Amino acid sequence: MKGESMAFTEVEGGVCAPSGFMAAGVACGLKESGKPDLCVLHSEVVCAAAGVFTTNAFRAAPVVVSMEHLGEGRLRAVVANSGNANAWTGRRGLEDAREMAEAAAGELGITAREVAVASTGVIGCYLDMEKVKRGISQAAASLSREGAGQAAEAIMTTDTFPKQWSLEADGFRVGGMAKGAGMISPRLATMLAFLTTDALVEPGELSNLLRRVADRTFNRITVDGCTSTNDMVVIMASGLSGRRVRGEELEGPLLALCSRLARLIVEDGEGATRFVTIRVREAADDREAEAAARAVADSPLVKTALFGGDANWGRVVQALGASLPDLDAAGVEVRFGGLAVARGGEPLGVEEGALREVMSSPRVDLEIDLGRGGGEAEVWTCDLSYDYVRINAEYHT
Amino acid sequence: MKGESMAFTEVEGGVCAPSGFMAAGVACGLKESGKPDLCVLHSEVVCAAAGVFTTNAFRAAPVVVSMEHLGEGRLRAVVANSGNANAWTGRRGLEDAREMAEAAAGELGITAREVAVASTGVIGCYLDMEKVKRGISQAAASLSREGAGQAAEAIMTTDTFPKQWSLEADGFRVGGMAKGAGMISPRLATMLAFLTTDALVEPGELSNLLRRVADRTFNRITVDGCTSTNDMVVIMASGLSGRRVRGEELEGPLLALCSRLARLIVEDGEGATRFVTIRVREAADDREAEAAARAVADSPLVKTALFGGDANWGRVVQALGASLPDLDAAGVEVRFGGLAVARGGEPLGVEEGALREVMSSPRVDLEIDLGRGGGEAEVWTCDLSYDYVRINAEYHT
Repeated sequence: MKGESMAFTEVEGGVCAPSGFMAAGVACGLKESGKPDLCVLHSEVVCAAAGVFTTNAFRAAPVVVSMEHLGEGRLRAVVANSGNANAWTGRRGLEDAREMAEAAAGELGITAREVAVASTGVIGCYLDMEKVKRGISQAAASLSREGAGQAAEAIMTTDTFPKQWSLEADGFRVGGMAKGAGMISPRLATMLAFLTTDALVEPGELSNLLRRVADRTFNRITVDGCTSTNDMVVIMASGLSGRRVRGEELEGPLLALCSRLARLIVEDGEGATRFVTIRVREAADDREAEAAARAVADSPLVKTALFGGDANWGRVVQALGASLPDLDAAGVEVRFGGLAVARGGEPLGVEEGALREVMSSPRVDLEIDLGRGGGEAEVWTCDLSYDYVRINAEYHT
Repeated sequence: MKGESMAFTEVEGGVCAPSGFMAAGVACGLKESGKPDLCVLHSEVVCAAAGVFTTNAFRAAPVVVSMEHLGEGRLRAVVANSGNANAWTGRRGLEDAREMAEAAAGELGITAREVAVASTGVIGCYLDMEKVKRGISQAAASLSREGAGQAAEAIMTTDTFPKQWSLEADGFRVGGMAKGAGMISPRLATMLAFLTTDALVEPGELSNLLRRVADRTFNRITVDGCTSTNDMVVIMASGLSGRRVRGEELEGPLLALCSRLARLIVEDGEGATRFVTIRVREAADDREAEAAARAVADSPLVKTALFGGDANWGRVVQALGASLPDLDAAGVEVRFGGLAVARGGEPLGVEEGALREVMSSPRVDLEIDLGRGGGEAEVWTCDLSYDYVRINAEYHT
């Protein structure tokens, strides 16, 4: 990622680091544990805004409502709850999502169309709107510039740590929080991310930028190959830094921010013990490279081998060959941590001690050359452990 | 499956039940455990023969050789080893596979082109041809009409039981053995099946029939969505019953046989605790139905929920919606064991005790209506348990 090598300064504050943003997280009772489960993010001024949303056919009610509200590329607030996804809840779910936006708008003195709504948690249960509205009131009353950490906690489901980051670029800041790669009891998998900046930028440009950056970060991670009904990334740009940016100026820091948040999601992947970077090069084109990387990343045989610290390149070539049935073994090379283990359809002798060291690391780099073009792609994933099974099997309805 | 409701008589004998076939399984030392690892199946007469093979780009050497040898639709023998897949072994692997056919042909007094070769086991290791040739000698010397059970054992890898069956139809018999849904230490996933019949049938017709039947049986099972480099189904028809069959007459018993063997593979799926039948109906066409059924069957979230006995329809609709992004929730219904749990984008209240009973069974039926056409498909799969992770993570290279 080019963005990461650029010199940005890390700053405190998460989504509240850029000028104009306040946040709060509260516990309104949607989670039985009593942990924080509702947050509000609010901007002093109307923001240029953009979003990218799940491609799942069964988009949850809050996704539908947020897509509508982002139609004009303007937002002033986000309201999000955990503990209930408000997905597969029909007409009533849609009404509830709209009511969340209206309640937040009422508390904040803005219009409902200026509010994005997000939910994450159980699929197929109606929201308890009394709790939700009480939570929105509380959160609106406790908004502060120091509230980003609470807000990041309030969107957690099976996440084991809150995920936020912020940094300062040339004259402006970007901040963000995310949750995900967690499936909550009993029915869910969702990735949410909310990003802020005080850079001055037009909604149309912001939207293009977000799409490009999300495609290289959030769209490059996979824990189990499942696309949730609730996935959403929303960005709000307050412009309060006064610094007008061209696309590329914002793209760098935004790429660094989203790259960091996306990696945090994978690191917190359910049951994950290793962070694995899969780089495919020499594909026919970038699309093919990405498909090949995903095929390897989503193979349960590869993932369990990674859990076992096994440099099992046989499973890697099996996954490649299954996903690209016309691939010629002659041009293929597989490397773990820089050590070539297979090339041109034949095994290579590798020093076992060196390989064992590479595979026992919490970060494993798997590189694959396909030998038939200039396409390349990188995907970030994690291993498949006993704990993945425990987390997803032991919850009962 | 229509074939299963027809009245065929189960008979003893496996691949040796039809007239003209002998088999043997021996231990030649490829498996460190000292268990049987090589088998020969031999016909008294030249057989009409056909095969279906893996679509993986990296077809193992024995697959390449068997495809060549089946070019004329005639075979007299199969030689197969476990413990080493002879895959990703380059030119030397090809020479070894040809040498296996030649050695078997020499022992049996036939030509090498009349021998199909199969291997299953570790990917990326060269065969110890001394052991293999000694094994072929031994097996050829101990061929018998009672050898089917030994042969079925000799192709096992992580299989926990041998898989064979045979039955008598109107004037002829069919028999078969299979292995699979097991990945052997350290690098493999392979499904092999060898079928025999004494029906009189032309090679061309046999080939069409095998393709049709395999598509409805072996191609409808999935343990972990991985397509091996070594998969192969081969059928040999000796004609010794003297009974000339038309396609449909053979198709019924063959479908029953392959259906049984395919189900046995899923039942023996690595770590499997439940056999799950996924039926999709009302799809736009059969192809869409199959894709949807596979998306659900291969979802690790669905599979872990099944392991946990959780009627987690939220994960089922998530998988459906992710695989068919234009699907309308209005027409969708999901049933576990006949109990409707979700319909038209809204949850349904279901009696929990009844649902718990359905989900705690070792056989679970999951039915999905898509509400947009007449396409249908059935896929057989198993759950994802701790043991799947153990089996595939705890072996080290």
